[in-house]
Amino acid sequence: MKTKATFYHAGCPVCVAAESHVAGALDPARYEVEVVHLGQAKNRVAEAERAGVKSVPALVLGGAAYHINFGAGIEALR
Amino acid sequence: MKTKATFYHAGCPVCVAAESHVAGALDPARYEVEVVHLGQAKNRVAEAERAGVKSVPALVLGGAAYHINFGAGIEALR
Repeated sequence: MKTKATFYHAGCPVCVAAESHVAGALDPARYEVEVVHLGQAKNRVAEAERAGVKSVPALVLGGAAYHINFGAGIEALR
Repeated sequence: MKTKATFYHAGCPVCVAAESHVAGALDPARYEVEVVHLGQAKNRVAEAERAGVKSVPALVLGGAAYHINFGAGIEALR
């Protein structure tokens, strides 16, 4: 069964570069990658915060949040 | 031909968690992953800095540096 990997971003240039490189580099045989644009899907901000996301872009992998560089704080997206 | 991916860390708990998850999640069919412990390989700090690494853990992927969470500033490793 594949592990769920969720990549949260907000459409900023830092996010988009990280998305295409990092999320696209994950092993498709082991990870099912979902990309969530929090600027558009504001109803998912709370879910991201519960997963430990403090800024975007961030990758939630197997329940752990990894913040990749820094685009925007999560509080700016609520 | 595989793209080179270099994961720089310094052995701290934040780094080790990021290494095992993120570096281990990359697609082995497309990426050749090298893990560099900058605390032990101080001769590679300059190379990391040239690649744009400002803190560890960091992943350099196709020439771009992605800082993952924050373990230590690169200046602490010189």
